[in-house]
Amino acid sequence: MKNYKLIIQYDGTRYRGWQRQKNTTNTIQEKFEVVLQKMCSMPVEIFASGRTDAGVHAAKQIANFICNTKYSCGEIKEYLNHYLPQDILVLSVEEVHKRFHSRLNAVSKTYAYTIATEKPNVFNRKYVFGAEKKPDIHKMRKAAEKLIGKHDFIGFSSVSKTKKSTERTIYSITITELENLLTIQINGSGFLYNMVRILCGTLLEIGTGERTEECIDTVFNEKNRASAGVTLPACGLKLIDVFYESIGHTEDINM
Amino acid sequence: MKNYKLIIQYDGTRYRGWQRQKNTTNTIQEKFEVVLQKMCSMPVEIFASGRTDAGVHAAKQIANFICNTKYSCGEIKEYLNHYLPQDILVLSVEEVHKRFHSRLNAVSKTYAYTIATEKPNVFNRKYVFGAEKKPDIHKMRKAAEKLIGKHDFIGFSSVSKTKKSTERTIYSITITELENLLTIQINGSGFLYNMVRILCGTLLEIGTGERTEECIDTVFNEKNRASAGVTLPACGLKLIDVFYESIGHTEDINM
Repeated sequence: MKNYKLIIQYDGTRYRGWQRQKNTTNTIQEKFEVVLQKMCSMPVEIFASGRTDAGVHAAKQIANFICNTKYSCGEIKEYLNHYLPQDILVLSVEEVHKRFHSRLNAVSKTYAYTIATEKPNVFNRKYVFGAEKKPDIHKMRKAAEKLIGKHDFIGFSSVSKTKKSTERTIYSITITELENLLTIQINGSGFLYNMVRILCGTLLEIGTGERTEECIDTVFNEKNRASAGVTLPACGLKLIDVFYESIGHTEDINM
Repeated sequence: MKNYKLIIQYDGTRYRGWQRQKNTTNTIQEKFEVVLQKMCSMPVEIFASGRTDAGVHAAKQIANFICNTKYSCGEIKEYLNHYLPQDILVLSVEEVHKRFHSRLNAVSKTYAYTIATEKPNVFNRKYVFGAEKKPDIHKMRKAAEKLIGKHDFIGFSSVSKTKKSTERTIYSITITELENLLTIQINGSGFLYNMVRILCGTLLEIGTGERTEECIDTVFNEKNRASAGVTLPACGLKLIDVFYESIGHTEDINM
């Protein structure tokens, strides 16, 4: 049995997210597993660095699966791209150490949320969120500093209660503006359910003056979802990179 | 009655082209006229700089219509964007001289055809054509020089026979490469049916070695469509600018 690492890309618009579900076959994991089963003539489970929610995109998602196949890495890539739908693309396939696990070994992930501050261009309308008011980027950047570090982010999530830890670490938040597109890029150890979309909704509302940056302290202190901003729509969110232990970057975890 | 000039943008993927047709309501012109009739409480005809074919996009198309309305230009823009589908966008509306006509006054148009030389990124897959072989860009540039100037382009079109002139002038062809995207940008006085897609198909086949640049002379001399390259798919084609008489650029034809 060999362990294969995949770098994949998908347009999440028409899917119910990454993770296989009982009540629908329309998930990205399921699309992969159907093709892998065909290729390997046996059921194959594929793991991703993390589940992306319904409608969320990935410019670079990392996945792995273990199987026995006669195909080379290049042939696996070709096979998958031939049978997968057009909005899912395998960028690379390589054999990695048996102990590599795309989720368990991930050290940090970067998500980008893109907001159009004018009506979005028709060609990227499915990948951005159109804001009604132009926010003040300086206010957003100042507020973002309060989010850096290790915190209990439960108030910035759609998790109601859980026995698992809801502490996460945010390593960096970069807010950039290019023409009419504002991008919030967040790198962190991991993210709770809806956390990136709520953090971005909170920063946006701080930028437009609907909230003050003090609300961030309130959410941390009171762990109260109601004090945070809206959950922005899934369409503007994209997983853009995943980093792994040892030397850090995904390129360095090979055998 | 006032004459309004519009700068518009559309994703042509799901339309049967710009021009109103008898057997379908699914054209961009029809979508505009339905909304304009609602806005003006009377039938309004809208003219574009040229028809784009089924599936062809426009990053910048120029149109105009004459009507009597109480709305300001800003209000017209808002009204149209509110009622038009999401894949059609009005970028600007302004009142222009009564004699301005978006098609009759156009001096030249620029189209861009984009070819992905590796499997296209999932986020722009609807706006590029994925080539199977990587072409030689230098061969393509050299061959493109033969197309510059005034020629009878009937052999590079899907026009069978016509009493109208099939002479057109190509002013420039620029071929650029950025990462895995190759873009052929053509500026010309006007284009016959399928002409841009056939010119790009011919240049691509010259780049991949399936044809030699001499085929261009053959097509011009024999006016024979069969000697030219394939008609590339509509998805890769985008109208990107329209230029007008007097000082030249669309910005200069206002009152």
